[in-house]
Amino acid sequence: MSQLVGNLLVAQSGGPTSAINASIAGVITEAGRHPDCIEEIYGGLNGIYGILNEELIDIQEEQQASIDALRYTPAAALGTCRYKIDFKRNPEKASQDMDRLFQVFQAHNIRYFFYAGGNDSQDTSHKIHEESVKRGWDMRVIGVPKTIDNDLPHTDSCPGYGSAIKYCATTVREVGMDVASMATDDGSCCIIEVMGRSAGWIAAGTVLAKGGLPENPPHIILLPEIQYNVDEFIAKVKSTIEAYGYCVVVVGEGIKNKEGEEIGADKTRLDAFGHPVLAGAAEILKEYIQEKLNTKTRTVMLGYAQRAAAHWASLTDTNNGFACGESAVRAAIQGQSGYMVKIIRQAGSNGSVEWSTGLQPLSDIANVEHFVPREWISEDGYLPNDQFVEYARPLVEGEVRPRMVDGLPAYAQLSKVRIDKVLAPRG
Amino acid sequence: MSQLVGNLLVAQSGGPTSAINASIAGVITEAGRHPDCIEEIYGGLNGIYGILNEELIDIQEEQQASIDALRYTPAAALGTCRYKIDFKRNPEKASQDMDRLFQVFQAHNIRYFFYAGGNDSQDTSHKIHEESVKRGWDMRVIGVPKTIDNDLPHTDSCPGYGSAIKYCATTVREVGMDVASMATDDGSCCIIEVMGRSAGWIAAGTVLAKGGLPENPPHIILLPEIQYNVDEFIAKVKSTIEAYGYCVVVVGEGIKNKEGEEIGADKTRLDAFGHPVLAGAAEILKEYIQEKLNTKTRTVMLGYAQRAAAHWASLTDTNNGFACGESAVRAAIQGQSGYMVKIIRQAGSNGSVEWSTGLQPLSDIANVEHFVPREWISEDGYLPNDQFVEYARPLVEGEVRPRMVDGLPAYAQLSKVRIDKVLAPRG
Repeated sequence: MSQLVGNLLVAQSGGPTSAINASIAGVITEAGRHPDCIEEIYGGLNGIYGILNEELIDIQEEQQASIDALRYTPAAALGTCRYKIDFKRNPEKASQDMDRLFQVFQAHNIRYFFYAGGNDSQDTSHKIHEESVKRGWDMRVIGVPKTIDNDLPHTDSCPGYGSAIKYCATTVREVGMDVASMATDDGSCCIIEVMGRSAGWIAAGTVLAKGGLPENPPHIILLPEIQYNVDEFIAKVKSTIEAYGYCVVVVGEGIKNKEGEEIGADKTRLDAFGHPVLAGAAEILKEYIQEKLNTKTRTVMLGYAQRAAAHWASLTDTNNGFACGESAVRAAIQGQSGYMVKIIRQAGSNGSVEWSTGLQPLSDIANVEHFVPREWISEDGYLPNDQFVEYARPLVEGEVRPRMVDGLPAYAQLSKVRIDKVLAPRG
Repeated sequence: MSQLVGNLLVAQSGGPTSAINASIAGVITEAGRHPDCIEEIYGGLNGIYGILNEELIDIQEEQQASIDALRYTPAAALGTCRYKIDFKRNPEKASQDMDRLFQVFQAHNIRYFFYAGGNDSQDTSHKIHEESVKRGWDMRVIGVPKTIDNDLPHTDSCPGYGSAIKYCATTVREVGMDVASMATDDGSCCIIEVMGRSAGWIAAGTVLAKGGLPENPPHIILLPEIQYNVDEFIAKVKSTIEAYGYCVVVVGEGIKNKEGEEIGADKTRLDAFGHPVLAGAAEILKEYIQEKLNTKTRTVMLGYAQRAAAHWASLTDTNNGFACGESAVRAAIQGQSGYMVKIIRQAGSNGSVEWSTGLQPLSDIANVEHFVPREWISEDGYLPNDQFVEYARPLVEGEVRPRMVDGLPAYAQLSKVRIDKVLAPRG
């Protein structure tokens, strides 16, 4: 094991989750245990986007209470971005960006770099790791997993996912009880739209609201992984209403029509990665149901609330997020680089689940999407089965209790003391 | 005080709230303290709708643990309805309904009747009270206030409202932090749509998320009470993004355009009371913003989640709901009838707020809507002011802690043991 002495830089990327700040708290906490290797602990503001502009803060200026509160604070406390270093589409700009990044790393003697994010961010980490080797800049690069979408491969689960489904399943249970309690002559339907562009993990996770009882909502879960038939779907809504008087449908935003097109896609708008910005799968299903069944149908679109609902985060999830941060630093101190931390599940005593962490080469992770396995979904495709429930249930265990002030959660606000810039502004 | 001995019937009506079951628990708990007057405690399923069909349950068959759990259980545990006895529109049917209701009351010796609901339900209670006098059926009728809309007059607030704004303000804070943390070159906007057809109490309540700081979200709150100008609104969004890099807008579903029409109204669908079913004010504002400012804009539509989010209910609110139920029974035992229980706010010691209850004649309540006072809104109309904050803040104090099983809240499920029907089925 080689002793590498220098500064640490941690940053966040992609859509926030309720657990991403817990991971940062883990990095910071573990870093503080290695003063022999880690001299300064810096935060990069808004991920790569801010680092390119040399926007760094001094984490050691933050109050310990703020670092502690990061364990239950939503959003990205360091700021985040959707910025891609894309050698395929724009090799010239990507090279310039990479040069600039390494100017920043060298100017501030960054020897430990931790990047918390999803697929695209792991890809960025991977490229930075490769560049550091190529350029002979001795720097340890470890990716920290983060995504409510739960679509990173090789890890049992992704920090952020357990909290997202704890909140979404709770909401589905509550909304389902509300809809069930309203008597109507001709039944009613409610459609709850959740995130998940390609992978249906969040939609699937709401099956926990059933508590194992077929009559409980959600009655139908539509996953992007499955090819649905509209007529069959409508028939299923109809038979559910006949059986229970109402029907609660959960839909992943990215479900596709027969032609393989996302039914909620507004193709006129693209995000920074060139994907269509989605909205409205629930509204379109509502139109179908009202047209075909003439059933009063309401929709709920949780949107960003589902990834930001830290007031109802899963303690298991935020603990796993924290552990990933700690583990990333330990691995780097031990000389590892070019890995993503992964979560490993083990059977504990008396049926409990125990969690540990491991490492997976970033080259195995970048841009690979992990989908809900077909064998975890019922034969007809409309509900995850017991195997899925066995997987998902331990992820929502335990409650985070944020500090409350005036009846509302008081989340961490970092003071963000800037590090002096030493480079000329980016051209 | 006349001693009236007989059975009690309690029922729920209108849209559920997170506190309506707490009120029922209060009725049941207080009723149990008066065995000399109250012989049997019945629940009417689905309000008037079920009572007309003689759908009654025996509350004394429920487990005490279930009654206790009602204090934090969402939806309407007895079931609810939107059924109006409308003497103006359909006098013949209304007379038949009233005859039938009194057949049910008499068949089951109902001498105490409690109805928890909003404006329309208080109107129903008022009519039942008047009919009981007219028909010489000695029965005490007390309305129990309930509505997230907070639009009942004469009461400080309505049980359900404090919980709705605790949840909505928390969500706005969390979503606002999420939006703020995402760096963009050209700013971003998020619009959160909340309930409130005519009165903007819920939208206004999200101002608590600001914690008194102008830079904190929400930056703009659009109330149905105020006539807005689209160009001025767009300019306000623009200047907010220039100042803070992002803008969070909260909109009450019922906001109106220059012509006084609800901008989100889908006029092709009407509810049971002939009002248009609203949806989409946020989507329409999003279109404006994207068209005029070309700013990436996301929406959140909480829908039923905001009235069902018992996992994050306000303890003050559910305690007030419980106290209203208790107070209703005490008033009836003391010989009162034809009143709604109201909540009274008093200054406590060291700046705290103390709550008590009182009575208001139902004739003062029925079909009167209470709006956010103009003097509680900033001059430009875009934010509630400090007077509003002083009013709303005590309503969100305290947390309800539902029992948790497998990481999700375990809510009360009544066993609903039916009372034998003694009447011929309704014609």
